[in-house]
Amino acid sequence: MKFPELYVENPKKHENKRVVIERDGKIIKFLDENEDYKGDGKVLYKIIYDDFPNYILMNELLSDILLYYEVGGAKQIIYLKKGTKLLEIMAEGYKVYPIVDFGCRILENHRLAAIQTGKGEIRFVNTPVTGLVIFLEEIPTKSGRENYKFYILPDKEIEV
Amino acid sequence: MKFPELYVENPKKHENKRVVIERDGKIIKFLDENEDYKGDGKVLYKIIYDDFPNYILMNELLSDILLYYEVGGAKQIIYLKKGTKLLEIMAEGYKVYPIVDFGCRILENHRLAAIQTGKGEIRFVNTPVTGLVIFLEEIPTKSGRENYKFYILPDKEIEV
Repeated sequence: MKFPELYVENPKKHENKRVVIERDGKIIKFLDENEDYKGDGKVLYKIIYDDFPNYILMNELLSDILLYYEVGGAKQIIYLKKGTKLLEIMAEGYKVYPIVDFGCRILENHRLAAIQTGKGEIRFVNTPVTGLVIFLEEIPTKSGRENYKFYILPDKEIEV
Repeated sequence: MKFPELYVENPKKHENKRVVIERDGKIIKFLDENEDYKGDGKVLYKIIYDDFPNYILMNELLSDILLYYEVGGAKQIIYLKKGTKLLEIMAEGYKVYPIVDFGCRILENHRLAAIQTGKGEIRFVNTPVTGLVIFLEEIPTKSGRENYKFYILPDKEIEV
């Protein structure tokens, strides 16, 4: 499994790679390592992919983020603004088998994961909304049970 | 269902909207309607989404294409170069219910569609490869049966 590159605005720590967002996302520029940038666009820095959950609080993104994924000859970019609301869905059980992953568009009631209970029964976790899977987090537990959190961008904004 | 915007190089007919690809995809610029462009990047023009199949022959893209999808506050871009090979999978039956759609990442053996036969039996069409669904075409038939074609970008290039 190859991971996407994750870029965020104002990270605590970051790598050298940068991407610039100009004109509200109409222009996206990946800078070369030592390239000088003097424009007035937003500069996003590459961070470790697994640090994604540090940039979300109470379901809301704390920074602009950009995900970049290059596979099979395609370049795939997803750009989300600070304040965007994501839906977080947990899947927990004796064994958890995620069915969808980063970048997957899901339709209402699609299966996100299969769960095996301690008694060997199989259950499914479904999505209540149509949207896009942004991130999949594996959360360590002391009990030895498995725990995954799906971060989903709903097509329709969540009403609170 | 909202459709992505589809941009291609050298289209037969096109709308006013344009996107420019510079430095092999490192810079992506959506131009304003009357904006002048003098750079040496590739200019891709917006065409009707349903015309996608006109730009593929023998499983190979005839032009560079860019898909742009804006939903739920996210901007999603997929850029594919001329010559990229796509896998085409048919789903045909008395009734066909597509399960995945444009932009969905699929894992090997995932279900693409459910098919109902004339006798009312349900069968599934699965994907033989892990990849990304690029386009879903509904093909009219004279027989009244339903016919869909899935265009899939495999993570690993197809060997012919």
